[in-house]
Amino acid sequence: MTLVGVDWGSSNLRAYRFGPDGAVIDRRDSPRGAARLKRDEFPQVLADTLEGWLQADTRVVLAGMVGARAGWHEAPYLPCPADPAGLAAAALRVEDAPAHCFIVPGLSARDASGVANVMRGEETQILGSGLSDGTIVLPGTHSKWARVEGGRITGFSTIMTGEMYALLRNNSLLGQLAEGDTPDEAAFTLGAQRALDNPAGVLPLLFSARADVLLGSLAPQAVASYLSGLLIGGEVAAMRDATGQGLVLICNAMLAARYQVALALAGVTDVTVVDGADAVARGLWRIGGLLK
Amino acid sequence: MTLVGVDWGSSNLRAYRFGPDGAVIDRRDSPRGAARLKRDEFPQVLADTLEGWLQADTRVVLAGMVGARAGWHEAPYLPCPADPAGLAAAALRVEDAPAHCFIVPGLSARDASGVANVMRGEETQILGSGLSDGTIVLPGTHSKWARVEGGRITGFSTIMTGEMYALLRNNSLLGQLAEGDTPDEAAFTLGAQRALDNPAGVLPLLFSARADVLLGSLAPQAVASYLSGLLIGGEVAAMRDATGQGLVLICNAMLAARYQVALALAGVTDVTVVDGADAVARGLWRIGGLLK
Repeated sequence: MTLVGVDWGSSNLRAYRFGPDGAVIDRRDSPRGAARLKRDEFPQVLADTLEGWLQADTRVVLAGMVGARAGWHEAPYLPCPADPAGLAAAALRVEDAPAHCFIVPGLSARDASGVANVMRGEETQILGSGLSDGTIVLPGTHSKWARVEGGRITGFSTIMTGEMYALLRNNSLLGQLAEGDTPDEAAFTLGAQRALDNPAGVLPLLFSARADVLLGSLAPQAVASYLSGLLIGGEVAAMRDATGQGLVLICNAMLAARYQVALALAGVTDVTVVDGADAVARGLWRIGGLLK
Repeated sequence: MTLVGVDWGSSNLRAYRFGPDGAVIDRRDSPRGAARLKRDEFPQVLADTLEGWLQADTRVVLAGMVGARAGWHEAPYLPCPADPAGLAAAALRVEDAPAHCFIVPGLSARDASGVANVMRGEETQILGSGLSDGTIVLPGTHSKWARVEGGRITGFSTIMTGEMYALLRNNSLLGQLAEGDTPDEAAFTLGAQRALDNPAGVLPLLFSARADVLLGSLAPQAVASYLSGLLIGGEVAAMRDATGQGLVLICNAMLAARYQVALALAGVTDVTVVDGADAVARGLWRIGGLLK
């Protein structure tokens, strides 16, 4: 049996062809994300993307928004706590596919107050990161902070840091005074430090990205980085109580560098960075090996 | 001497003609806000708006964005602490005007960490509310929480609650699942309560306005009110330490009702509501009486 894994997100898909030992022997990218396709287009897009990779015994494991309600077929959220065997058992068998296809479900969680959370795609990255006990952080549009205990994902929170940054940078009154997006490390650190220092959190600080410019104490060129620092610092401040040492960060190198600055300011220095694409490939391989 | 006051904001202006005792004897509204005008259009707009009101000895007091850098003439921010006499003394005399015109400066503040804040227009409302010791809250696009001690505004914070609501409702992934904006009191209260209860603040809760819909535990019709509750509750939660009893709320009746729900959930029930238009008129009158 051979295995192919596909990370099929909203805006693009990435396919991994695995060797018998789990090594990625080929990789293909496509811009045909799940949000851009009608339901009946998925089989052909998958066949095109995997052309030449499929044999009679090939299994294809799909993760991400492909399994959302508006995707190809809905793979309902599996409630936490969840472990790899549970995810594999809940994987949705797809019939109208060019191979033996399975869609990994997303995860849902509720905290003690009943507040709901969902993730889709990140569960596969968490599995691929090794599932060591502690906090696993997946920064992004909707950052996830997951708790892992005894090989299970026991719960998680979401902070909309990336989306808030985009909204405030591009659509708000703060953004009107910003000039450019050139990274400014000092401005980022100032924002993160202020967010971590403020006992009331980051909300009463956001407007300073405008007020400090109006009063001449922040350069318009520094607004974007300052705002990024405020929001990432605010995310770390809000989740600080969930943050022990031994934190795993799953993302690209640029985001990892920013989060490591904010985490270090919060006293968290034992941070392992796992590349997001590596994590999803390893997670797809792991789930593929557990499918019945 | 007769007095006219003008609240000239970004999107509209409102003029008040005062009787000799400070009573408003006439009022005019215009959609010709400061953000919609070129600098050389201000004199004519003012003359048109005040037609028939001006006598040789009439003084006109202007407050709001008319005094911003991008307004008619910049009336630089006066640093806190500030009192009515200081605001009147710093009012900018305007020469190219159809009457004896003065623009009230905005206020600036810096907290102990150096975080900047500015307001423009709200200082006049705070004066008009009576300047009693305590916390004065002006909910809105950029809510202001001001501290008044001994007849002076000693400092203030800004929380971008109104703008965040608009961005999240209209431009974010949360808004995609929202259906309509019909007020839903139970959803508002649920959001406010959750924001006040969460020790990590409101940031980790915003995404629940999507997740709870996906899991069937929140109706799409309730998302707008739930989000409003989260944000107003989050604002009150962040400012709770600045909140004693004896709080004054300056805004319209609809916003006042929402904030009173959130404040009551936080245990603040001694709330005096002052109508925003009444407050600005009284503030303009008060500053007018102090002009040299």
